[in-house]
Amino acid sequence: MMSSHFEPDAALISAARERISAYAVRTPVVESPALNRELDARILIKPETLQRAGSFKFRGALNRALQLTPEQRAGGMVAWSSGNHGLALSYVAKELGIKATILMPQEAPRTKIDGVRANGAMVRLYDKTREVREEIGAQIAAETGAVIVPPYDDPYVMTGQATLGAEFAEQARAQGLPLDMALFACSGGGLVSGASCGVHGVTPETRIYSVEPEGFDGMARSLAAGELTKAPASGASICDALLVPVPGKLTFPVCQKHLTGGLSVSDDEVKAAIRFAYSQLKLVVEPGGAAPLAALLAGKLDVRGKTVGIVLSGANTDADKFANFITAA
Amino acid sequence: MMSSHFEPDAALISAARERISAYAVRTPVVESPALNRELDARILIKPETLQRAGSFKFRGALNRALQLTPEQRAGGMVAWSSGNHGLALSYVAKELGIKATILMPQEAPRTKIDGVRANGAMVRLYDKTREVREEIGAQIAAETGAVIVPPYDDPYVMTGQATLGAEFAEQARAQGLPLDMALFACSGGGLVSGASCGVHGVTPETRIYSVEPEGFDGMARSLAAGELTKAPASGASICDALLVPVPGKLTFPVCQKHLTGGLSVSDDEVKAAIRFAYSQLKLVVEPGGAAPLAALLAGKLDVRGKTVGIVLSGANTDADKFANFITAA
Repeated sequence: MMSSHFEPDAALISAARERISAYAVRTPVVESPALNRELDARILIKPETLQRAGSFKFRGALNRALQLTPEQRAGGMVAWSSGNHGLALSYVAKELGIKATILMPQEAPRTKIDGVRANGAMVRLYDKTREVREEIGAQIAAETGAVIVPPYDDPYVMTGQATLGAEFAEQARAQGLPLDMALFACSGGGLVSGASCGVHGVTPETRIYSVEPEGFDGMARSLAAGELTKAPASGASICDALLVPVPGKLTFPVCQKHLTGGLSVSDDEVKAAIRFAYSQLKLVVEPGGAAPLAALLAGKLDVRGKTVGIVLSGANTDADKFANFITAA
Repeated sequence: MMSSHFEPDAALISAARERISAYAVRTPVVESPALNRELDARILIKPETLQRAGSFKFRGALNRALQLTPEQRAGGMVAWSSGNHGLALSYVAKELGIKATILMPQEAPRTKIDGVRANGAMVRLYDKTREVREEIGAQIAAETGAVIVPPYDDPYVMTGQATLGAEFAEQARAQGLPLDMALFACSGGGLVSGASCGVHGVTPETRIYSVEPEGFDGMARSLAAGELTKAPASGASICDALLVPVPGKLTFPVCQKHLTGGLSVSDDEVKAAIRFAYSQLKLVVEPGGAAPLAALLAGKLDVRGKTVGIVLSGANTDADKFANFITAA
């Protein structure tokens, strides 16, 4: 199961879709005529921002939690997260009546920390520069009997995220617009690895790209090098959800098989995408969730004449920061 | 046709849905578990904010424009609008290759004025205190041969808005949640009159309410008095789209027949609803579009145990104002 070549197949994805369907939102697909005109393409946008807990992470967290035995449920769950996985898992925990502890970096957005607490989970803040989140998580698990729910390098989590890709590819095909290309934000690679399997189960010809913040583009570097390669991660990025500098051990081999390449975007490109989503799409999106839209608006791919799918993957962002993004010009 | 008892029936609404289906978005229905819990109800939210041109107005404007003969199309269209009808009609005009002139109050939001211009329409700003928009419109129509497309008191416009009600009621019923109640924002009454016919064609038992800004609640006053009654309109309201002080001559009789009552909301209640939509729904909504959500959050109706439909009807709001709304606490 934990071999480095796990890949969610059609049967696993189908079972996960069935399993999560009572809780998860089947998010719609929307289009912006202005965007289509500007790019001379059909851009299909899936606002997973409307998912429970405000991001795609709900799918994976729920799919994992629904596998727990009654004994495991009694021991609770523990996870580390820059925010969205924690929000999702704490939401799932509340829905299912399971205790949860979430480790979050001190500098995580307030709305994410507050949201996890509002869901009734215990928050343990840690100092990235001095503490290793995996170690704290393992210690809590050992002491309490809680099950660790990793943010991306986990078969059930990847399969949960795969449901998003399958759903999107089916929605596109049902509109008579099978995806020529699809772009997914990438941090550890849980979304893009899982979703690419989901997409390719429906339309195997779709060319899929990861999108990362500049300087944190471990997936792009790893794909180019043919082996796990760490990004410098020396600067800063406004994409608080996309700061993992190297792909996961489970997610990378899947991406090697399914991805055409990796793209990266600057903070300014991300801000422009947030403004575009506000003014044209009327959707709230957080920096990390806007990365694929940013890549398209910045012309990182030649999409002329193509049908291109992008996911807006999260919308949990502090109001003061969002206000600054949309009013800066 | 222009009798004061026009009402869009099932056949007209069905024909309009067919007619506009190639252009209009079938907006989704979303729910917020947090809102459901807070109100102890099932609140079905239809974000018509995702409609073309950012509001429901697209439906009525399009339905009217598609009735024009080739000769009428050549003469163009003229309309007066606080903004959303103008945005919608100018968008329709661009799509169909028709000239359009839009009269807008000088104090309309910049994003609305700029948006109409970006759609290629001519904008004529007027001074509400000195000029009568209907007179200017009639003059332009006489001089240019343009067809007047009124914002609400028009059978085709009302039928276009009726498509929203029919679509919403069907979506709710398809989820096994027929609407017990439905709330629609109201200015001249085009939306609530049309949509109530659409809803009642699907679920005749739904209790329907208009929602207006305090002091501009002409529909509530007229319903209570049993005759057209003007609201004082002496103060100000942040709901720039809902400032018509008295219902239309066509819309009011329809509302008398279909509505249970009229509600009103304060600016602070509307701001709280905009913040809620930002933080919980991840949706951008303008003040007028948030009025029904504001009414629910402020407890203006006892909705416990009920299934309640609300439309977020528009999302065209200046970024600096929106930034202030979401950061004020």
